[in-house]
Amino acid sequence: MNAKPFPTWPDVASRLIAVAAGREPADMVIRGGIWVNVQTRECLPGHDIAIAAGRIACVVPDAAYCTGPATEIIEAEGRYMLPGLCDAHMHIESGMLTPAEFARAVIPHGTTSMFTDPHEIANVLGLEGVRMMHDEALLQAVNIFTQMPSCAPSAPGLETTGYEISPEDVAEAMTWPGIVGLGEMMNFPGVSAADPKMLAEIAATQRAGKTVGGHYASPDLGPAFAAYVAGGPADDHEGTSERDAMTRARQGMRAMMRLGSAWYDVESQITAVTEKGLDPRNFILCTDDCHSATLVNEGHMNRVVRHAIACGCDPLIALQMATINTATHFGLEREIGSLAPGRRADVILSPDLTTLPIDMVIARGRVVARNGVCLADCPHYAWPDSARNTVHLGHALGAGDFEIAAPAGANTARANVIGVVENQAPTKALKADLPVREGLVEGDGEVCQIALVERHRATGGVVNAFVSGFGYKGRMAMASTVAHDSHHMIVVGTDREQMALAANRLAGVGGGITLWREGEELALVELPIAGLMSDSPAQEVAAKATQMVEAMRACGCTLNNAYMQHSLLALVVIPELRLSDLGLVDVRSFQKIPVLEVPS
Amino acid sequence: MNAKPFPTWPDVASRLIAVAAGREPADMVIRGGIWVNVQTRECLPGHDIAIAAGRIACVVPDAAYCTGPATEIIEAEGRYMLPGLCDAHMHIESGMLTPAEFARAVIPHGTTSMFTDPHEIANVLGLEGVRMMHDEALLQAVNIFTQMPSCAPSAPGLETTGYEISPEDVAEAMTWPGIVGLGEMMNFPGVSAADPKMLAEIAATQRAGKTVGGHYASPDLGPAFAAYVAGGPADDHEGTSERDAMTRARQGMRAMMRLGSAWYDVESQITAVTEKGLDPRNFILCTDDCHSATLVNEGHMNRVVRHAIACGCDPLIALQMATINTATHFGLEREIGSLAPGRRADVILSPDLTTLPIDMVIARGRVVARNGVCLADCPHYAWPDSARNTVHLGHALGAGDFEIAAPAGANTARANVIGVVENQAPTKALKADLPVREGLVEGDGEVCQIALVERHRATGGVVNAFVSGFGYKGRMAMASTVAHDSHHMIVVGTDREQMALAANRLAGVGGGITLWREGEELALVELPIAGLMSDSPAQEVAAKATQMVEAMRACGCTLNNAYMQHSLLALVVIPELRLSDLGLVDVRSFQKIPVLEVPS
Repeated sequence: MNAKPFPTWPDVASRLIAVAAGREPADMVIRGGIWVNVQTRECLPGHDIAIAAGRIACVVPDAAYCTGPATEIIEAEGRYMLPGLCDAHMHIESGMLTPAEFARAVIPHGTTSMFTDPHEIANVLGLEGVRMMHDEALLQAVNIFTQMPSCAPSAPGLETTGYEISPEDVAEAMTWPGIVGLGEMMNFPGVSAADPKMLAEIAATQRAGKTVGGHYASPDLGPAFAAYVAGGPADDHEGTSERDAMTRARQGMRAMMRLGSAWYDVESQITAVTEKGLDPRNFILCTDDCHSATLVNEGHMNRVVRHAIACGCDPLIALQMATINTATHFGLEREIGSLAPGRRADVILSPDLTTLPIDMVIARGRVVARNGVCLADCPHYAWPDSARNTVHLGHALGAGDFEIAAPAGANTARANVIGVVENQAPTKALKADLPVREGLVEGDGEVCQIALVERHRATGGVVNAFVSGFGYKGRMAMASTVAHDSHHMIVVGTDREQMALAANRLAGVGGGITLWREGEELALVELPIAGLMSDSPAQEVAAKATQMVEAMRACGCTLNNAYMQHSLLALVVIPELRLSDLGLVDVRSFQKIPVLEVPS
Repeated sequence: MNAKPFPTWPDVASRLIAVAAGREPADMVIRGGIWVNVQTRECLPGHDIAIAAGRIACVVPDAAYCTGPATEIIEAEGRYMLPGLCDAHMHIESGMLTPAEFARAVIPHGTTSMFTDPHEIANVLGLEGVRMMHDEALLQAVNIFTQMPSCAPSAPGLETTGYEISPEDVAEAMTWPGIVGLGEMMNFPGVSAADPKMLAEIAATQRAGKTVGGHYASPDLGPAFAAYVAGGPADDHEGTSERDAMTRARQGMRAMMRLGSAWYDVESQITAVTEKGLDPRNFILCTDDCHSATLVNEGHMNRVVRHAIACGCDPLIALQMATINTATHFGLEREIGSLAPGRRADVILSPDLTTLPIDMVIARGRVVARNGVCLADCPHYAWPDSARNTVHLGHALGAGDFEIAAPAGANTARANVIGVVENQAPTKALKADLPVREGLVEGDGEVCQIALVERHRATGGVVNAFVSGFGYKGRMAMASTVAHDSHHMIVVGTDREQMALAANRLAGVGGGITLWREGEELALVELPIAGLMSDSPAQEVAAKATQMVEAMRACGCTLNNAYMQHSLLALVVIPELRLSDLGLVDVRSFQKIPVLEVPS
C-alpha cells in the first residue's frame, strides 16, 4: 500500500532532454492549443506540449520533431491549454470523503494539486491519522500535499480531543515525503503571546524549509496582528474584507481568498487587485471547506476561478491565483503550477477562459478526466480497524443519560441556552426559563436538548445542555460524530429516547450522521473512517447528505446550512456559547458556565 | 575566523513578537518614511519600521508603541524606505577584490545581498578556494550567498585548470551554510547532450532544494535550447534581445538582465516588460561582472536600477526586479528582498525613486553606510599561503622561452593569428605571413607575440603564438594571471626579453598584471589572492587599474576595454581562436590547430 514515489525532475532529466532535443519520441503530445502562460500572463496560440515520464519535456510551436509512432496524440483543436488548478488550503474531511474519493470528485473539475490540512482526523487519531491521510494522498494520480495540523486541540483546557499534536509530532511529520508545511496556525492569540508550544511548531516547520499556514480570525489589525505576522505564518485565508487582503499582502503574507461551500470571501477581497490595482502575485484562491454536494453539483477550484472572473478579475490573473501563485508560495514553482519544461504534466483543455468548461484533464502525463468523467484510478488506503472503529461510548446509552436534573423543589429553571443564529457561525448566549417535570428540566418551544457524548476514550461521559434555533417539532433527535474540532458526538433532540437511539446507532455504524423520529431512522450518512469520512463516492455521500437535510426539514428545521450549524456547536473557539466534553463554555470569556443558573 | 551565523527567524521570533506586540522596545525604529512595498508594488507614506535582533519586527503607521529609551531612532524625514538591493548573479573576482573589499565598495551603493559564483578561484584553487570565498562572504555585514561553480574547467579537454570541479564537490558544497545553488551552467552543449557529469551536478543541486543557475550563450532558441531548459537550469543571464528575455520567461526560467562594466543587456531586453507588457515577476536585474573602477565611479545595483528606469521601466517594477523577484527566485522571499516582518532589516533611505540617491544603508539592523561612506566593518578572511602563493613557474623565464622556431630554411612563415576585434569578445581567426630572423618567426606590424604560461603545477610550460589588434609599438610586454577561465598567465608582447621580465615579475608578486617597456615596469596591479584578487580597497585597485590602462595606451594600444581583451584570450569557449596551455584552439571546431601552417 506504499505509494511509489513520483520520479523527481533529476530522476528523469536525461529523458526530458532527449525528447526536447528530438532524440527520443515523447510519451504524449498535446497538439495545437493556446498556451496559457501563467509566468508571463499571456495566451500564446499555436503551441504543442511534449510530455515524457509524467513531466513536460518542452512547449514548442511544433512538436512533430519529438513525436514517434508510439506517442499518444491529444488534439487540442485550438482550445486553451492551462495548468491544472491548485487548491491552496483545504480540509478533505469537509467533503466527508476520504482523500481517494475526494480526488475522484475533483479531478473532473480540473483540480490537480491540493494543499490539505487533515486537522479533523488529527483530533480523532492524532499523528497516526494524519499519516493515514498523507499515505492515501500519495497514492493518487494527482498531487495532494499535506499540511501538518498545528492546533489539536483547538482550545487547550476547554476540550479533550482524541489525541493532541505536539511540536515533536510536527518535527516528525516534516520528514515525511508528502508534507509541505504546517496547517493553519489557528491559535493566533497564542502566537501573539509568544506561546512556546506554538512557536516550537512554527520553528520546526521553518527549519525544515517549509511553509507555515496562517489563520488570523480577528478584525483587529493593530499590534496583535503585527505580532502574529512577526511570529512567522506565511499566509492567511481568514480575511473577509478588501482591507484584510491588502494588509496581509503588504505585510508579506499571501492573502488566500476562499470560496467554499459556505465561505464567500473572494468578492469582498478581490477588489484589492481589480480596483486598487495591487500586484496580484501574492493573492491566492482556495476553498478551505467544500461539501460533497458542492463538488458534485458546482465544482471545485474551477468554481472559484469562475467566481473570481465573475467578480471582475482578469481571467489570466484569476488563473495565476490558482496556479503559479500557489506553487510559488509553497516553494513548488518548478514542480507544478505552470506549463513549462520539467514541471509535472498537469494540463486542462478548455474552450473558454471565462466560463472555464473542463473538457479534459491530464495529470502527470495521463488523461485522468474527460467531459466530467473521472478516468483515474483512485486507490484506497487499507484503513485499519483503528481508523474504522472510533466511536467508543463506554456503554449503550439510554434516555437517562440525557436527563438534566432540576434544582430540588423547582417548578421552573433558568438555563443558559446556545442560540443558533441563521447564516452565522457565532452563536448567541441566551437565557430561557424552562419547565420542570418529574424533577427534570425539559426543552420547551424553540429550546431543545443538546448533548456532547464522549466518544474517544469510552468514558461514558455525556454533557447535557440546551440549544435553540433549529425549530424541531415532535419526538426526534439527530446525532453526528462530525463535531468540530474535537469530534466527539453532538446529539440534538426534543426527546431523550430518540437521542439515545441516535447516539447508539452511530456507535453501531462507526460514526456518521443519523436522524430519528418516533423510533424510526429517517436518514443516515455513514462516515466509518474516524467518524468523519466515507470511502464511498461523492455522489452517494452527497445523495445521503441531501436526504439528511430533507429529514431535518421534515422535523421542522428551516435553517440554511442546518447540518453545519449542528456540527459546529462544539467548536469552542467561536463565540458565544459552545458545548464541549468538559461542559458549557462561554467563548467570550473562555470560561465554563453552568447549564442552569443557581436560583437566587 | 569562523562566521557567527546570523540568527534565523525562529531563533528570534519571540523577540520580534514581543516588539511588534509592544511588550518590548525595538532596537531601532526608522521613523516617518514612505514604505516602498515591493509585494504589492505600492508606495505607502507615513510608515515606521521597528527592528529587533537584526530583523524587521513590524512596519506600522506609528511605532511609538514599540519604542523605548534605548531604541535607536533613524528619522526618515519623508524619504523612501526601500529594501536593500540584490545582485542576482555576479562574480566577485571580476572586481579584482576579495569579498570583504567588494562588500566595502558596494555597501554605500545600497547592495545588501549578492549571489556570487566564485568560478574564477575554483579554476585556481578548486573546492578549497570556493570555501575560502564562501567563508569570507559569511563574515560580512551584508548577505553574500555563494553559488557553487559548475564548470571548471569550462572546456574539458581543451585546457588544464588548477583544479577541476566534480559532482561530488557540488554535493559537498550544498551542505555549506552559505551555498544558495549551482553557479551558471555554462556547458550548455553538455546539458543539451545529457552529459552525465553536468546532469549529476544539476541533480545534486535540485535534490538539495537549491537553485540551478543557467548560462545559455547561443542565439539558437530551437530544440537545443528546449533541451537545455529541460535539463533544469532555472535562470539565464545570457540573453541579449527582447526575444531572448521573453522566451526564457515563457519557458519558466527567470530572465536575468545584466548591466556590468562591459555588459549592456538591460535596454535590449526590458522592452519585454515595458512594451510587450509581460508580467514582470520573472525578470531580474544583475551585474555579472563589475570592475573596481565601475564600483568606485558609477555604482553597483543602484546603477542597474537607475538604468532600467532610464530605459522606461516603472521605478517600482525596476526595484522589484532587484529585490523581491531575486529573493523569490532563490527561495529567500521570507528572508530578504522586502520590508516585512521577519525579514533581515536591510533598508535603504533615498529621497528620489527615479535617480535613486543612496542616503543611508541599513543591513541586518545596523547603519552600514551614510552618504556614500561605508561604516561597516568588513573582516578579512585569513587567506592561507596556499591562496597567496599560486604563481608557480617551475623556473625563471628567459627570452628563449618565448621563441617560435621557423621551419628549417624558411625566410617567412604563415601563422594562424588571434585577431582581437574592437568591442567584441569573439576573436577572428586570421592568417599572416611573418618574417623569420635567425630561425625564429617574429611579430610584425600589428602582429605581436602571445604566450600562455602554465602557472598552476610549475610544469614550466609556455605555449607561444601570435595575436593582432592591440597596436603595441616599441619593445614592451604585458602579463596577467587573470586569464579566463583557467587563469594561467597570458603574456602579450613585442619583445621576448620584456615578456620574460613581465612573467617573472608576476611570479615574484604572487600574481596580478604588469606592463614592461624597455626593461622598466610602467604599471603593476598586484593581485596576491589566487593571482585574481587584491585585499586592498577598491579605490586603490581602481587607481592602479587606471594606471595600467594609461600604460597600455602609452605603448600604443587604442582598444576600448583593452585589458579585458587581454584577459579573455585564453577563454576557449568563445570563438574563434584562443590560446590554452594545450595549444592554439579553434573554438569554432573545438580543435587544436598549429601556430604555423605547414609549408605546402
